[in-house]
Amino acid sequence: MPEIRQDVTTKEWVIFAKERAKRPEDFKRGVNRELSSPYVDGCPFCAGNEAMTISEVYRQPSPHGMGGVDWGLRVVPNLFPALVDKGDLARIAEGNLFHRLDGVGQHEVVIETPLHNRFIHEMGDDETTAIIDAYRARFTELRDDDRFKVILIFKNHGKAAGTSLEHPHSQIIATPVVPAHIRNKYEIATAYFDDTERCIYCNVVQEEIRLEKRIVLLTDAFVAFHPFASRAPFETWIAPLKHRSSFGRITDEEAADFAAVLRIVLRKMYVGLGDPDFNYVIHTAPLTDEDKHYYLWHMQILPRLTTPAGFELGSGMSINTVLPEETAEFMRGVQIS
Amino acid sequence: MPEIRQDVTTKEWVIFAKERAKRPEDFKRGVNRELSSPYVDGCPFCAGNEAMTISEVYRQPSPHGMGGVDWGLRVVPNLFPALVDKGDLARIAEGNLFHRLDGVGQHEVVIETPLHNRFIHEMGDDETTAIIDAYRARFTELRDDDRFKVILIFKNHGKAAGTSLEHPHSQIIATPVVPAHIRNKYEIATAYFDDTERCIYCNVVQEEIRLEKRIVLLTDAFVAFHPFASRAPFETWIAPLKHRSSFGRITDEEAADFAAVLRIVLRKMYVGLGDPDFNYVIHTAPLTDEDKHYYLWHMQILPRLTTPAGFELGSGMSINTVLPEETAEFMRGVQIS
Repeated sequence: MPEIRQDVTTKEWVIFAKERAKRPEDFKRGVNRELSSPYVDGCPFCAGNEAMTISEVYRQPSPHGMGGVDWGLRVVPNLFPALVDKGDLARIAEGNLFHRLDGVGQHEVVIETPLHNRFIHEMGDDETTAIIDAYRARFTELRDDDRFKVILIFKNHGKAAGTSLEHPHSQIIATPVVPAHIRNKYEIATAYFDDTERCIYCNVVQEEIRLEKRIVLLTDAFVAFHPFASRAPFETWIAPLKHRSSFGRITDEEAADFAAVLRIVLRKMYVGLGDPDFNYVIHTAPLTDEDKHYYLWHMQILPRLTTPAGFELGSGMSINTVLPEETAEFMRGVQIS
Repeated sequence: MPEIRQDVTTKEWVIFAKERAKRPEDFKRGVNRELSSPYVDGCPFCAGNEAMTISEVYRQPSPHGMGGVDWGLRVVPNLFPALVDKGDLARIAEGNLFHRLDGVGQHEVVIETPLHNRFIHEMGDDETTAIIDAYRARFTELRDDDRFKVILIFKNHGKAAGTSLEHPHSQIIATPVVPAHIRNKYEIATAYFDDTERCIYCNVVQEEIRLEKRIVLLTDAFVAFHPFASRAPFETWIAPLKHRSSFGRITDEEAADFAAVLRIVLRKMYVGLGDPDFNYVIHTAPLTDEDKHYYLWHMQILPRLTTPAGFELGSGMSINTVLPEETAEFMRGVQIS
């Protein structure tokens, strides 16, 4: 018998189609993708090719003093930006019904390492922490620009996740509008707070910890779990145990803890699923609402193992073929030593 | 300069990233996909293999009396259904915060033709009309089951659109819940009606016709256009000129007109883009609201030429790389003789 579950944070329904059911291990790739070499000629993000990127906005030193390379991480503007740092926020009418505005914003690339083939799942905690530090530094800088309403930090890993560049990198986009999808979620959280004086995300986290069965990893400061209404197999949320609406307010200690949990989760995914394509996104309150208590920043990781089709596009409902209780149990058992 | 446009029917924003801009013709596949033969051994939908499907719920006779085949179109239950015709609608609590219900619903497959390689873009108007007639007949039947709230009719064409079966088919799913995504759109349309006493979709259609530049095809009864805030290249809407909330209320004459427009649009897409993968979905009011005036049924066709990545997943905003004015002009020029 299939079942339908609701995500309380979005009110979206997810169908768990047991007639199409798969076992967690059925999602593993037969062969891991081929490893590239540490340097690839013509890659704009590789050490030695720094001239292929422009006007670096952030840099960290090389953690291990690697031969001749004087940086460990760089942040540069995206050469093909979705949004740009100029233009006007005024709405421009087209006819009587439509409106648009200039594509004002920022679009940056976090080059996570000088090495073409060093992904987070292979890094040490110091390197992963450097990435989280960079996210926070750029978030803090962009937050002060009052043209921006939302800052999205995300990673596309692999072709099915929409990336064309292999070199380990993530992206930061600051938008001049609050996306309707984010506004909807924020309004659900606000209404819940009005009713209960509690953050709905904190309640979800506490309830998942109490129920135990969907937890992948629990530390003193963070929890990684497969949510009750996972939209896709192995969807994973990493959330702080301490309430904080904005990712920008993360402390040094929390950043290091978060980095360690992220590394372990991605490592388990790499080993258990055979280097799947995935996206991750840091969800955080809109910038004007950072000091309100209605939201909990967290990361959502979505492996791209299945293809959303017409039903999903038309209804907004997802069809999942495996229960998060089963995938979480599987992930807990994956050894990563 | 990129620009950001809002879809007034969903309030979602779409970024048009001109720094990544492509010309419409750049989306064409180099080579069309290989054509299969009319019969494929082991295909459950091919003529002669009827025993591989169960309990047919609808059938149309063969339009041309093809040698020995006594049907032109069949509707059968999906062998791997997302939802099933049994179970209970009661919500079941899990812990203090989560809830679920049985996966009650219907999931049917419309086998559009006995021939494995006869797609809509190759059909005559009588065959396409037979498909629309089948959609309406099944919609009308399922509508009378008061367990169901929404009926989704959709097609997945090609691997990037999420299908594994090549034989021309579409699907019908009746759900026991109103998806939040559909409820949101319906509430936007209702608020607009409260303000203006007009259907927002009819206003969009009239405005697109008045502005002309995004129209692909205009007949006495239907219009096909690329919407102002197209989420992806070549997104196409087909809408009736006469206001009707529910697809289920389409007349015989309208069904034939709609079929003809659909055939032409898919034919232009096949020729102009080289048989792209695509999804289409018929959007219609929830079943309890069929007699209200807030909605206009219409079809949305979404070619799967690009891959939504982390930004899209996290924000709900889309990034498009070509303006609908340009793609509509390109499509108008595609000759389909």
